[in-house]
Amino acid sequence: MTDQKISIAVIRRLPRYYRYLNILIEEGTDRISSAELSHRMNVTASQIRQDLNHFGGFGQQGYGYNVKYLHSEIGKVLGLDKGHSMAIIGIGNFGKALARNKDFASNDFYVKSMFDSDPSVIGREISGITVQDAADLITALKEDPVDIAVLTVPKDAAATLADLVIEAGVKAIWNFAHCELEVPDDIVVENVYLIDSLMRLSYKDSHRSHK
Amino acid sequence: MTDQKISIAVIRRLPRYYRYLNILIEEGTDRISSAELSHRMNVTASQIRQDLNHFGGFGQQGYGYNVKYLHSEIGKVLGLDKGHSMAIIGIGNFGKALARNKDFASNDFYVKSMFDSDPSVIGREISGITVQDAADLITALKEDPVDIAVLTVPKDAAATLADLVIEAGVKAIWNFAHCELEVPDDIVVENVYLIDSLMRLSYKDSHRSHK
Repeated sequence: MTDQKISIAVIRRLPRYYRYLNILIEEGTDRISSAELSHRMNVTASQIRQDLNHFGGFGQQGYGYNVKYLHSEIGKVLGLDKGHSMAIIGIGNFGKALARNKDFASNDFYVKSMFDSDPSVIGREISGITVQDAADLITALKEDPVDIAVLTVPKDAAATLADLVIEAGVKAIWNFAHCELEVPDDIVVENVYLIDSLMRLSYKDSHRSHK
Repeated sequence: MTDQKISIAVIRRLPRYYRYLNILIEEGTDRISSAELSHRMNVTASQIRQDLNHFGGFGQQGYGYNVKYLHSEIGKVLGLDKGHSMAIIGIGNFGKALARNKDFASNDFYVKSMFDSDPSVIGREISGITVQDAADLITALKEDPVDIAVLTVPKDAAATLADLVIEAGVKAIWNFAHCELEVPDDIVVENVYLIDSLMRLSYKDSHRSHK
């Protein structure tokens, strides 16, 4: 595995390859050439060859990629070969939507616990899981640890809750709050800033010629 | 304005600059040096100078950037100087969460209409807007056009609904469905693939040393 040298730009593209390879598997395709994949993904074939070269020589000239093997190798690089348990902190509409998302489970990300501070939400059952009191966060997560804490809370509460989940031993945070979290070096964070995405759409919309 | 030459990588970073500049404005900061901005944003000062140079010479040596001017110029490049109206198609938990998001309105993205096909949802009022029947989508959007259609619908329905909103004259689509849309050249699309973001977190989690 040569993934130590994979650039961030390639890493950003890997989930998309993974997604397309999954579709190909579902369609029953065993092998695909870089030219065919290029056509389907609307990326140049040379880009595809460059990106996938990082995984070693399994794209033989004239023979194409072994779809299942490539899917599995990319999955391993992405760390998807082991499942991930998640705690959702903040059970508003957004938290509920994530709890009910089916794409996550099909990639072995499963929701293990949910927390909220609203008395009208605590104790409710969503997708078979009872929402716990956020006041018990540390105890609950120490007793029943998760790989990932999903923060779907207002901006003002995010920093405090991040500190709490870190204290409870969580090492990875998926942050939907519209702020950047300061975390120790051994904690990884992935932010989803929806407004940034909307601004990129606005950019494309006003620069239609070079979309 | 030299934005014709701005690379996609820089464009991707602009919303983050815009966000930080907004915080500085709220704090009452008039000017900031690339060194200070570098410290706050955790980006190298040379990267900042390189990125912001695209906007012309308003970062004078030893004098720093004029925060309000830079904020306003980046806002213009992102097309934020004109407001955007949106229709949300699919009023599940996710659609509701977006409808109630306050960050959008503060950046002049406002929800104008909502549509769903579920009879138990049609007619309901969310954030002061009555959910309309998705069957009337084309007529409604032709009568009362929007700048952006937000697709928060299941994967299977996304392509059909994208075709409908395009037929109704919408030119920009914010797609949350887990699929890639095929659209005519004059339509812009921004996709939010949450599972891709989760996979990147999984990657960081399993390659902690080079996060």
